[in-house]
Amino acid sequence: MGYDLYYWPAIQGRGEFVRLALEATRTPYRDVAREEGVPAMIRKMGEGATPAFAPPFLVDGTVMVAQAAGILQYLGPKLGLTPEGEAEAVWCHQIQLTITDFVAEAHDTHHPLGNGLFYEDQKPEALRRAKGFVVERIPKYFRWLERAILRNPTGTVHLVGDALSTADVSVFQLVEGLRYAFPNAMRRFERDFPQTAQVHRMVRDLPAVAAYVASDRRVPFSENGIFRHYPELDAEGDEDE
Amino acid sequence: MGYDLYYWPAIQGRGEFVRLALEATRTPYRDVAREEGVPAMIRKMGEGATPAFAPPFLVDGTVMVAQAAGILQYLGPKLGLTPEGEAEAVWCHQIQLTITDFVAEAHDTHHPLGNGLFYEDQKPEALRRAKGFVVERIPKYFRWLERAILRNPTGTVHLVGDALSTADVSVFQLVEGLRYAFPNAMRRFERDFPQTAQVHRMVRDLPAVAAYVASDRRVPFSENGIFRHYPELDAEGDEDE
Repeated sequence: MGYDLYYWPAIQGRGEFVRLALEATRTPYRDVAREEGVPAMIRKMGEGATPAFAPPFLVDGTVMVAQAAGILQYLGPKLGLTPEGEAEAVWCHQIQLTITDFVAEAHDTHHPLGNGLFYEDQKPEALRRAKGFVVERIPKYFRWLERAILRNPTGTVHLVGDALSTADVSVFQLVEGLRYAFPNAMRRFERDFPQTAQVHRMVRDLPAVAAYVASDRRVPFSENGIFRHYPELDAEGDEDE
Repeated sequence: MGYDLYYWPAIQGRGEFVRLALEATRTPYRDVAREEGVPAMIRKMGEGATPAFAPPFLVDGTVMVAQAAGILQYLGPKLGLTPEGEAEAVWCHQIQLTITDFVAEAHDTHHPLGNGLFYEDQKPEALRRAKGFVVERIPKYFRWLERAILRNPTGTVHLVGDALSTADVSVFQLVEGLRYAFPNAMRRFERDFPQTAQVHRMVRDLPAVAAYVASDRRVPFSENGIFRHYPELDAEGDEDE
């Protein structure tokens, strides 16, 4: 059988957190909408007893599961990316849910008034929203991640426990996305958040991840995804230079 | 021991989804910040190996878990509010995560530019964001919930399986909140979304829930919470009369 992942074929988006977990573990999967197109995905999305509200969703035999964090929680134990103890598994998922919030806020910088309007129709609002994100929210989330890593009783190589988890993999993608979208705000990231930067590098340098990122399976970042590089939204990072 | 729930004492907010799961099952718990104050909560939040990014969080012996959906997933099996099979448990959590998104969008109607500004400082933006929420998003989410209930192979009394779950309890709170915040947009809710309305009534009429809602343990809705009644944001529901 194998895993069938369904996500918008032209963007990384929320599906990329799932793709990376599969790729980091060299797990075979089909990226169905890239093979069969979006109409096939939309049709599948509404089928069965557990319809998805939106992509991404994963089909594994008779199970269909949506929501990036929900998919990762389902896949984690199967891919060896979830810690074994209950408390550590709960902590891993809590980090995932907090990263989900962080990513949603990154998205909202360019769509503060919602997805019903184009970016160009909400640009002044995006400027105001992005300012708060860059000045307050990015540092607040990363300070929390730093603390999480430093408090790991088994060492600071991983976010949870002493092995790779979905949390580590998702932090890699989070940092990649923020660097693409907010290079100015992120330029002191390595210095200010060394633990998180170290986890990012550790995942980046995994042979499976490096091979994936260099492949054409990795969709490029663009101004259609969650992380968008609009230089005007990245200007505030200058102010404390 | 028992459960210690930490959340802002003056609002329902995201903590209410956890309170309701505990109350619906008559599970003893301490609502710590209401007894000991917010400083005690903030202190506790940063402690230990698994610090919370934000309230709500739950302490159960040596486990500390944050994120409403994460707390409910941890508590569900312990309270008998999670279906037993893996596929059904995954589906229950997927519904919970989608409700989380719905609630976040309800929040963003009054804070489209983020929590760094007061509502009064983002009112024009809130009007634009609320319009899309009322006209497009509320119906879209409820149509999905209707489909979920109708597809339940064991009947339409519950969202998942044939017993009460965290998903049912959270739908109750979701509907209560939307009715408080958007009475105009929600006035045809019973007619347009009869399955979801039936689940809402089923939970509302549980003796434990009814007793809780009538008690002073239930914090009233207010314009400090997630669901806020600003009549100007509720005006668009009229247009298709």
